[in-house]
Amino acid sequence: MKPFFQVQTIEEVWRRMSEVACLPSETVPLDDAAGRTLAEDFTAPCDLPGFSRSTVDGYAVRARDTFGASEPQPAYLTLHGEVVMGRAPDFVLGAGQCARVGTGGMLPEGADAVVMVEHTSEAGQQIVEIGRSAAPGANVIGPTDDAAAGQVLLPARRELRPQDVGLLAAMGVRQPRVARRPRAGILSTGDEVVPVDEAPGPGQVRDVNAHVLASQVRAAGGDVIPLGLCPDDAVRLRAAVDRSLAQADLTLLSGGSSVGSRDLTAEIFQGVPGAELLVHGVSVAPGKPFIWVRAGDHHLLGLPGQVTSCVVAFHLFVEPLMERLVGRPAAAFTRFGRQGATLTRNVAAQSGRELYQRVRIHETESGWLAEPVPGRSGLLRSLVQGQGLVRVPLGAEGLEEGSRVEVLLFPGAAR
Amino acid sequence: MKPFFQVQTIEEVWRRMSEVACLPSETVPLDDAAGRTLAEDFTAPCDLPGFSRSTVDGYAVRARDTFGASEPQPAYLTLHGEVVMGRAPDFVLGAGQCARVGTGGMLPEGADAVVMVEHTSEAGQQIVEIGRSAAPGANVIGPTDDAAAGQVLLPARRELRPQDVGLLAAMGVRQPRVARRPRAGILSTGDEVVPVDEAPGPGQVRDVNAHVLASQVRAAGGDVIPLGLCPDDAVRLRAAVDRSLAQADLTLLSGGSSVGSRDLTAEIFQGVPGAELLVHGVSVAPGKPFIWVRAGDHHLLGLPGQVTSCVVAFHLFVEPLMERLVGRPAAAFTRFGRQGATLTRNVAAQSGRELYQRVRIHETESGWLAEPVPGRSGLLRSLVQGQGLVRVPLGAEGLEEGSRVEVLLFPGAAR
Repeated sequence: MKPFFQVQTIEEVWRRMSEVACLPSETVPLDDAAGRTLAEDFTAPCDLPGFSRSTVDGYAVRARDTFGASEPQPAYLTLHGEVVMGRAPDFVLGAGQCARVGTGGMLPEGADAVVMVEHTSEAGQQIVEIGRSAAPGANVIGPTDDAAAGQVLLPARRELRPQDVGLLAAMGVRQPRVARRPRAGILSTGDEVVPVDEAPGPGQVRDVNAHVLASQVRAAGGDVIPLGLCPDDAVRLRAAVDRSLAQADLTLLSGGSSVGSRDLTAEIFQGVPGAELLVHGVSVAPGKPFIWVRAGDHHLLGLPGQVTSCVVAFHLFVEPLMERLVGRPAAAFTRFGRQGATLTRNVAAQSGRELYQRVRIHETESGWLAEPVPGRSGLLRSLVQGQGLVRVPLGAEGLEEGSRVEVLLFPGAAR
Repeated sequence: MKPFFQVQTIEEVWRRMSEVACLPSETVPLDDAAGRTLAEDFTAPCDLPGFSRSTVDGYAVRARDTFGASEPQPAYLTLHGEVVMGRAPDFVLGAGQCARVGTGGMLPEGADAVVMVEHTSEAGQQIVEIGRSAAPGANVIGPTDDAAAGQVLLPARRELRPQDVGLLAAMGVRQPRVARRPRAGILSTGDEVVPVDEAPGPGQVRDVNAHVLASQVRAAGGDVIPLGLCPDDAVRLRAAVDRSLAQADLTLLSGGSSVGSRDLTAEIFQGVPGAELLVHGVSVAPGKPFIWVRAGDHHLLGLPGQVTSCVVAFHLFVEPLMERLVGRPAAAFTRFGRQGATLTRNVAAQSGRELYQRVRIHETESGWLAEPVPGRSGLLRSLVQGQGLVRVPLGAEGLEEGSRVEVLLFPGAAR
């Protein structure tokens, strides 16, 4: 009945994810746009700033009138007027003339440079001493220096940073079009699991994964639909999955770490109309029992029940799929910092699995050290005390003490 | 009238900021806690998990009954029963006995190890063949392995990561106590500036800074109170500052890049009851005209009007103050990644100022390169195209082409 399903490599899973279509777009208010993903190329609707602006307080001049000027041998120019901020000057600068201008002020016609006020002095009777020669364009931003109309300023699929939001503001964009945030239904199973607000009895534990996953989804730019806790029961699990199908783009089902529960998860997912089993097991530790079933545009993801495995599986599989859903490559660890370090102890890896070892890092006089965090895979402590992960590639038998490694730093510094 | 005020170094400003008192605390729902700052040490209220748990599917055993067992010479144990998930076993394991247990199941009294199901087979008639010797504690999480009651598990002032939220969930904390988010009133000035939804006339530009600052404040964990745009007019500026004083912890006033406007900003700030001028000018470029006035618990910050300078001044001064307000050290660039790189061109620095040069980075066969982004300080483009900053320390005359530098990467990758 159950088809034999080959364990896949991480790269095979990511390749599959790169074929997923991305979510539709929506518009958002400008001040909510940072961190969102631009849905289409942004092309400059006009020149920016659109006029010649001074970058300093000083005097607008015709550059050639200042050539050869120096402190001992200044040029003398006639003060023609003053530029009022926010208005086009109502005069034209002629030969031998200058005009007061503040930072950000518009250059009058005829002027092509600004001399900083520090290099000038007003000599009285409308005469200004210019103590320095100015090249054409000196201290001036030209009309198209920030952008020329028609230029692509921001490429589609860019995650907007505050300065990118600034560029949109400068161009008058109040409602940029961005990819919709992926919505993740979060569901926990396990007969031994109780909600956070209940006191666990003997043999019971609280539902940790739902809250870790909710925090991870939000940090990765998604919205959370909490679906609660469900016992390992086919009918109730299927009902919870149906609630997720109706509201979310992704279902994250964690728990069912025992063999029987894992089979139940796969069975429930495959019972959804249109279900297509894409991944059932990956050659990685932790994260091996990952399940991915697609049903139309919805993605059903089965994650390990042990919290350490669940956290790593999120970064390895859920985050890349979320990246892809907003239109970017299905890559992992894009939100992780990196730190080169020296390993303080051997790390043994099981052959046939890529390993992600939790490590603590600290800086010493001889550089950064990465210390493997002891503790079995079920221990939350190893994640709380750890600052990151070290990858031991598939095929390697492990890493030796003293090896140079790149530590992938968990998002949000543990300071 | 105006007291002469010494330009300070960045370090002097940070030192001052480290004396600021932090904001009061509040409680938040658990799923909103990631990214927030824990207000007090979190001490384990109980042991975790509180009982001995299996980390694998297999058989709970008394380790000594398996000593010497191997595939060719297995030990034979009597199957006493099965552990039901989420319940305390209602039996005690005696000598020569074993019990089925799933991942996460509770060990029966008498058992001290678990043998993975892969190393066993049920031989019929309640006899289980054990093909491997198990050490005491093998495949078991002990009652205090994750935490012992009374241990400090998370220190006060920790920025909570998803896994830290998981630990709170495991301990039944539904409403952790965290530092209140700093509230920043954001105000722009400049007679040449118009709101984003207006078409700028000749000599005018749209209000970019308000939207960049709002995005930066939120990315740094603060809340935004938009106060709009105000002409360079003392009465109206003071009224806007009063609105901020009534609602916010910080006022961020940007603009007024000309000398006259800067003086006006300082004058308005110092006119607030209880005002104390702490900083007026810093030996850094960009960011030199930074002003900091404290009025009771409120901080009035004057930022440069040019957008590039404003962005850098935010990271140099506003973010460290926000860090301090939630109780952490007043340090800059804590949210920036780091990338070692080789400089592709000389960077000239003005003596007496620490310089932050905007750079683009790219990876080549010979490693990462940092290319100074050309463009005058008023250009948004240099920030949009740049990925980070390179620091040229005070006292250095610049950096030469080919120097090794550490690039501070702007938060939010420009992918």
